[in-house]
Amino acid sequence: CLPMLQAETDASVAPLEVLPIGGVGEFGMNMMLVASGDDALLIDAGVMFPEPELLGVDLVIPDLSVLDEWRGRIRALVLTHGHEDHIGAVAHVLSRVDGPVYGSALTLAMVEGKLEQHGIKPGERLTEVKPRETIAVGAMRVEFIRVTHSIPDCLAVAIHTPAGVIIHTADFKIDQTPLDGEPTDLHRFAELGAAGVLALFADSTNVDRPGHSGSERDVIQGFEEIFSSTQGKVVVACFSTSVYRMQNLINLAEQFDRRVAIVGRGAVNTSEIAIRLGRLRMPSHLQIRDAEVRDFPSQDVLCICTGSQGEPNAALPRIAIDDHRHVKLGDGDVVVFSARSIPGNEKAIARVMNHAARRGATVIADGEKHVHVSGHGAAEELKLLISLVKPRYFTPIHGEYRQLDRHARMARNVSAGLEVILAENGDAIVFDEHGGRIHRKVAAGRVFIDGTHTGEVGDEVLRDRRHLAGDGLVVPVMAINGITGVLEDTPEVITRGFVVDKKTEGLLKEMPAVLLAMLEQTPIEERTDPGLMKERVRAEVQKFFRKRAGRRPLVLPVIMEV
Amino acid sequence: CLPMLQAETDASVAPLEVLPIGGVGEFGMNMMLVASGDDALLIDAGVMFPEPELLGVDLVIPDLSVLDEWRGRIRALVLTHGHEDHIGAVAHVLSRVDGPVYGSALTLAMVEGKLEQHGIKPGERLTEVKPRETIAVGAMRVEFIRVTHSIPDCLAVAIHTPAGVIIHTADFKIDQTPLDGEPTDLHRFAELGAAGVLALFADSTNVDRPGHSGSERDVIQGFEEIFSSTQGKVVVACFSTSVYRMQNLINLAEQFDRRVAIVGRGAVNTSEIAIRLGRLRMPSHLQIRDAEVRDFPSQDVLCICTGSQGEPNAALPRIAIDDHRHVKLGDGDVVVFSARSIPGNEKAIARVMNHAARRGATVIADGEKHVHVSGHGAAEELKLLISLVKPRYFTPIHGEYRQLDRHARMARNVSAGLEVILAENGDAIVFDEHGGRIHRKVAAGRVFIDGTHTGEVGDEVLRDRRHLAGDGLVVPVMAINGITGVLEDTPEVITRGFVVDKKTEGLLKEMPAVLLAMLEQTPIEERTDPGLMKERVRAEVQKFFRKRAGRRPLVLPVIMEV
Repeated sequence: CLPMLQAETDASVAPLEVLPIGGVGEFGMNMMLVASGDDALLIDAGVMFPEPELLGVDLVIPDLSVLDEWRGRIRALVLTHGHEDHIGAVAHVLSRVDGPVYGSALTLAMVEGKLEQHGIKPGERLTEVKPRETIAVGAMRVEFIRVTHSIPDCLAVAIHTPAGVIIHTADFKIDQTPLDGEPTDLHRFAELGAAGVLALFADSTNVDRPGHSGSERDVIQGFEEIFSSTQGKVVVACFSTSVYRMQNLINLAEQFDRRVAIVGRGAVNTSEIAIRLGRLRMPSHLQIRDAEVRDFPSQDVLCICTGSQGEPNAALPRIAIDDHRHVKLGDGDVVVFSARSIPGNEKAIARVMNHAARRGATVIADGEKHVHVSGHGAAEELKLLISLVKPRYFTPIHGEYRQLDRHARMARNVSAGLEVILAENGDAIVFDEHGGRIHRKVAAGRVFIDGTHTGEVGDEVLRDRRHLAGDGLVVPVMAINGITGVLEDTPEVITRGFVVDKKTEGLLKEMPAVLLAMLEQTPIEERTDPGLMKERVRAEVQKFFRKRAGRRPLVLPVIMEV
Repeated sequence: CLPMLQAETDASVAPLEVLPIGGVGEFGMNMMLVASGDDALLIDAGVMFPEPELLGVDLVIPDLSVLDEWRGRIRALVLTHGHEDHIGAVAHVLSRVDGPVYGSALTLAMVEGKLEQHGIKPGERLTEVKPRETIAVGAMRVEFIRVTHSIPDCLAVAIHTPAGVIIHTADFKIDQTPLDGEPTDLHRFAELGAAGVLALFADSTNVDRPGHSGSERDVIQGFEEIFSSTQGKVVVACFSTSVYRMQNLINLAEQFDRRVAIVGRGAVNTSEIAIRLGRLRMPSHLQIRDAEVRDFPSQDVLCICTGSQGEPNAALPRIAIDDHRHVKLGDGDVVVFSARSIPGNEKAIARVMNHAARRGATVIADGEKHVHVSGHGAAEELKLLISLVKPRYFTPIHGEYRQLDRHARMARNVSAGLEVILAENGDAIVFDEHGGRIHRKVAAGRVFIDGTHTGEVGDEVLRDRRHLAGDGLVVPVMAINGITGVLEDTPEVITRGFVVDKKTEGLLKEMPAVLLAMLEQTPIEERTDPGLMKERVRAEVQKFFRKRAGRRPLVLPVIMEV
C-alpha cells in the first residue's frame, strides 16, 4: 500500500483543487486548473477542431467563464508543448491570467506567432523554461520534466504544493532513440515516485494500443524504400508541427540528392521557427521555395506539405485538384500520407487520394508502408510511467470516456494500492485531510469561434457568441449535381438569429446571384467536392456580409450533392 | 502476348457493350449492364449508404433513367450475393427488367424479404441458380462460379457472349478454409482462363492491403480469449449479414456454454433465413430471445447485435445508452466490435464505445484482438485471380478512383500483355472488331431515397425526387446544449422546395411546439447525442407531415451542439 501524504494527515495544510476544464472526456482543447490556497495556475490552453457538423466554426475552445471564480488569482499559464490542442487558445485565455506564460523555447515561439495574429504583444510575459528547471507560482513550485512526443521541446510538469506533489504528463511517449537525443527524463519521474507523489494525471490517447508506439526513427526504412524507388517527385503530407518527421525527410532528401520545398503556410511557419531555434537542421543548399519546384526535374524534388487531413485549403488538397500555383502532380510522382487520419476526416482524405491518383501519382498511406508513428505512448509506455511515479491517486486525462476508463483499469492492475479518480471536464477534484475525491461539479462548456485566423475576435465577442441562437447564423443551401457540377436550383439563403433590417434584407436577396456568380467561376472538379465548396461558399458569404454591412454572421453552408 | 479473341477478328459478330452504372469510382450501389446485340442483362442492383452530409436520406441508388436506352431488352437481373450494396435496389429496378432474377438460394431469400417490405410479390421471377450452372439470356450464356466472401452463397459470373467471355468477380476473397467447406472455384477460373477470356471485371476494395485477407476462421482465437476471460455477458456487434461470423460465435457459445440471443431486426432476419436454408447451424437449445436475456446469469449469455457502425436505432447503440427494452450492460460485460469502421462512421462508433464504457463494460475493437477479417481479397488474392483468368482486357470495379488505379497498375505487372480499360460509372465500354475501349459516356447519376424501409416509395416518386430542389425539403434547426441537453432557443423550421399552402403553413407553425414536446420526453443522455437526435427529429417530423397532411418531405435536421 502507498504511504499517506501530507494532505491526508494534516488539516492545517491548504487543500489542493484540480479542475479539468477541457480534454478530459474528449480529445482536444486541453486545459486544467490547479489551485492551492490563494494561488492558481493553468496548464495548457488548447483548442479542438470542430466536428463536420459545425461547419462555419473554425475552432472550439473551453468556455472560459468557468475561470471567473479564480479571477485575480491565476498567477501563471504553463504550456507543455506547441500543439494546437495545447496552445491554440492562449490568445483567448491570456487576459484572464495575471502572471507569466511559461514554456520551452519552441512552444513559446509558436505561441508568439499566434498572439501576433491576434494583435497581442505579450512582451515579457512569455518566459522560457528548461527541463529540470523549477519556477515558483505563489506557494507552489512548478518543475519541468522532459518528455518525448511528436514535436521537440515537450515538457511534463510536477507541481510541488503544500498538499503534495502532482504530476501532469502532458502528451508523451517514451522514445528511447529520439532524433534529437533528448529522451523522456525517466530518472526524474523515478526520483519523484520514490519521494512520494500525491496524484498523477496521465495522457490516455493511445491506451487502446498494446505494446510500444515506437520511435520516430522507425519511419526511416519505409521512406527509404519510397525515395529509392520513386522516379518523380516525392510529395509527403504530414502535420504542420511534425518537426521530427520533417527532419527525417530532410535527411533522406540529402541522402537521395533531392531539393526540399516546404509547401503550405502552417508547415512553412513551423519549419522557420524550428530552424531558427536549432530544432530542425536544414542544409541551406537543399531548401527551395514552392515557386522553384518547377525549375527542378521531378526526380530531384521532395515536397513536404500541409493537408494530411484533407483540409480543403491546405497544400496537398489543392495540389491534388491541380489548383496550386506552383506544385503540379504527374505520372511517376508519389504522394505519401505520413499522418494518422483523425476520426471524421476519412472521407475528405479519401477524396484527396482519389484526386492525386487521377493526376497520375501513386498514393501511399500509412499501413502500406510504415510512414507514421504516433507521438503518444501505447499501453506498455503508460504502464511504465505509472510504475515509476507510483502515485497515491490516479486520474487519466486526454481521452474520451472509454480511453479514460481503460487507463483507469490499467493503472489499478499496475499498482494495487493506487486509487483512481475518474473525472471528466468540470469535475473538481480536491485533496485535503479526507483524501482525494471529486467534491463538486463546475459548469464546463464549449465556445465556438469562427474566423480566429483573422485575429479579430475578442473575448467579449466570444462570450456574445456563446449561444449560437443569438449569434447570427446564415445558412446558404445549394444543390449541386455531383457529376456535372451544375447547380440544380437557385441557391437559397436561410438565416437564424440574424437581425434582418432593411439593409441586410436587401443583401440576403442579392446572395443567390452572388453565389451563382462564384459557382460559375469555379472549375467543375472543385464544384463536385462538397468539402471544398463549403469552404468557398463560407468565405464568399462571410466576405459579402463583412464588406457590405460590416456584419459577421456565423456561416453554415449546406451543400447537397444531387 | 495474349491471343486475339472473336470480337477483334470478326466484324460480323455483334459488338458487346458493358456499362458500369454504379460502384465503379465509388464504394456501393453496384450495378453493371451487359448488352450484346438485342439482349441485355444487369449484374446486381445495389444501394449506397448516404454520407453524413445527406441526413434525412436513407439510401442512395443509381439513377435508373440510364436504363431507358435498353427498355424492353433487359432480359435478366443477375445477383451475385445478398449484401445491400448488391441487392438493396432490386425493388426499384425490378419494373425495368423483363425477365427473371437469378441468384443463389440465400441471395434470393434475402431479396424476397426486401420485396415484401415494398409490397412486391415477385412470384416465379426469382430463379435459384447453383455454382457451375449456366442459364441463357438471349444469345448470351451466364455461368455461375462459387467465390468466398463474408456471406455464404456468393457467386461470380462468366458471361459467354458472341464477342467472347467476360468475367465479373463480384465481391470475393480466396478463403482456403471456409467455414462451410465451399471454397472459391479456382479450377473453373483456371479453365476459363486457359480457354481465353475477353475481359475481367474485378473487385478492387482491398487492393491497398498487401498479402492475404485471411480466413474467417482466423477470428476464432481472438474470440476464444474473450469468451474464456469474460465474467459477464459477451456482446458482439457485427454486420447483420455476417452469417459466418455468427456461426463462429454460435460455435463458441456452445463450447463455452452460453445461450445466444440475436438482437436487432437485421440480424434476426438474416439469421432466420440462414437457419431455414441450412447456411447457419443454431442448436435449438442454445437460442434465446432478447426478452429472455435477463432470465439468465450474465456469464451464460452471448448477444449478437446490430449497430457495429454506431447507427442510432440499431441494437448495440441503444443498449449502450441503456435504452434497450431487454438488454442492459453492466460491470463485467464485454462489448466487441467485430466489424471494420466504414469511413465516416468513426465518430458515431466512438460515441457508442464511450457509452458502453460508462455502463461499466469493457470495450474491445478490432486490432486489440483479432475479431474481424475482411470479406474482400487483398493484393495477393487479386493477383492470383488475374493470373488464373489472364484476360485480354482488364477493368477494375468496386472502388474509388485510387483503388481502381492501383488495381490497374497491379494487373499490368501480373500480365504484361493485358490491356487496362480504366472506366468509371457511365463510361460505356465496347468490344468490337477494333478491340475493347470506352466508346461513349452515358449520364450516370444518383438518386436519394428516404423512408424505403416503409416500402412506400415507388418508382415515380423516386423520379420526382431526383431534383432535390423540387422535392420538398424541411430543415428543422435545433440548438441543444451539449452538456445539459437543454434547448438553447425555440426550434426553427426551414423549408426548401416545399409547397407551403394554408394547411402546411399551419403545420409549420406547430412544428416548434411538437419538437419541444418530443425533446422534453427524451432523456438527457440521448439529447446530447446529435446523431441520435437527428434520427429522432427526422422520424418525428416525417410522421407529423405524413399523418397531418399526407406529405412526405425530405427531412434534413440540423442539430447544433452548443
